[in-house]
Amino acid sequence: MAVKVFGFVGSNATYRVLASLYEKNVDFELVTVNMAAWEHKRPRFLARNPFGQVPAFEDGDVSLFESRAITKYVAEAYADKGTSLKSKDLKKSAIEGVWAEVEAQKFDPATAKLTWELFFKPLFGMTTDEAVVEEFSKKLEPVLDVYEARLTECKYLGGDSFSLADLHHLPNTQVLMGTKVKSQFDARPHVSAWAADILARPAWVKVTSLLPK
Amino acid sequence: MAVKVFGFVGSNATYRVLASLYEKNVDFELVTVNMAAWEHKRPRFLARNPFGQVPAFEDGDVSLFESRAITKYVAEAYADKGTSLKSKDLKKSAIEGVWAEVEAQKFDPATAKLTWELFFKPLFGMTTDEAVVEEFSKKLEPVLDVYEARLTECKYLGGDSFSLADLHHLPNTQVLMGTKVKSQFDARPHVSAWAADILARPAWVKVTSLLPK
Repeated sequence: MAVKVFGFVGSNATYRVLASLYEKNVDFELVTVNMAAWEHKRPRFLARNPFGQVPAFEDGDVSLFESRAITKYVAEAYADKGTSLKSKDLKKSAIEGVWAEVEAQKFDPATAKLTWELFFKPLFGMTTDEAVVEEFSKKLEPVLDVYEARLTECKYLGGDSFSLADLHHLPNTQVLMGTKVKSQFDARPHVSAWAADILARPAWVKVTSLLPK
Repeated sequence: MAVKVFGFVGSNATYRVLASLYEKNVDFELVTVNMAAWEHKRPRFLARNPFGQVPAFEDGDVSLFESRAITKYVAEAYADKGTSLKSKDLKKSAIEGVWAEVEAQKFDPATAKLTWELFFKPLFGMTTDEAVVEEFSKKLEPVLDVYEARLTECKYLGGDSFSLADLHHLPNTQVLMGTKVKSQFDARPHVSAWAADILARPAWVKVTSLLPK
């Protein structure tokens, strides 16, 4: 099996990559990086990602890190397999690219803080900082307002087809659906329908089957 | 002239886009958005970018926002003009993509705070928060350590050729060279040489000629 993902169950960035591989029907091996044993900070893993963070990725002689760079590679390298995750039309692909950047620059900075405070901290026995939750819930509001307007125009963020722009949202959205932030999605009918739609994709359901129960 | 950039002199994200257009020898018109008159929050501009931030971009019937999405479009749409900013080889392009993500996820979050505190706040008559400067200078250290190691292996971050991965660093690097953060670059010979090299590119020198004197 040529494709290897070096990550672990519990890492949202790892899930982002797995979602792209399941969408593409690309066989892969998930090589667990033992974070508790600090494997991600040892030379062997640092040679794969000098920042010492999961996931890292290998496809034959291609070695990559940064989850969003990996999904782009998967979308292009396996363009003709499974779901098309990136339009072959330059204009459509550029618009998908805009909304992929919006995820990285606007959605992720707010939702990464919220998933940390509301899901991961309690999981690790730490106390949620409600002031941080309030601050970043407020920051998420205008982002979801823009999404609501966008999703009134087209079914997916990047256009009429599911693309990386939507896929990149899956891990944080999945986590937030189990928190009070769900009400912010629910308050917007198009955002709510879009979230339900992408979370129900068979490829994502396969990823969630790996989640700790 | 088909290509229009809606932005203003003083916006680092606008400069990122201008750098890509100068590298490609693509003629463009810079349409100034009057931020003082809140033009960026009015319906006409919000139709270009619903987040109300510069730059926005137009190329015939292609309308985009988010500076890094725009530069990618420019690199692909004008692939055969000027400097190649994105390799046509899938593997090389994927590695450039990794380092472009590193800029967005690691370099920019630290340096955007530093440019704000050390350059823009004094420019607007505001007081620099030295605690913030210290915090983000520290966060920049491991990023520059990784860059130093990477630039020992190859001349540019994405490989042996200049690419978007380097270009995206230009605006914040330009500003920081006029601050005490320069010493963090200078302390690393390969990072220092790389910064000097990319800042001296004729396309970037054209952008800097627009900077307020």
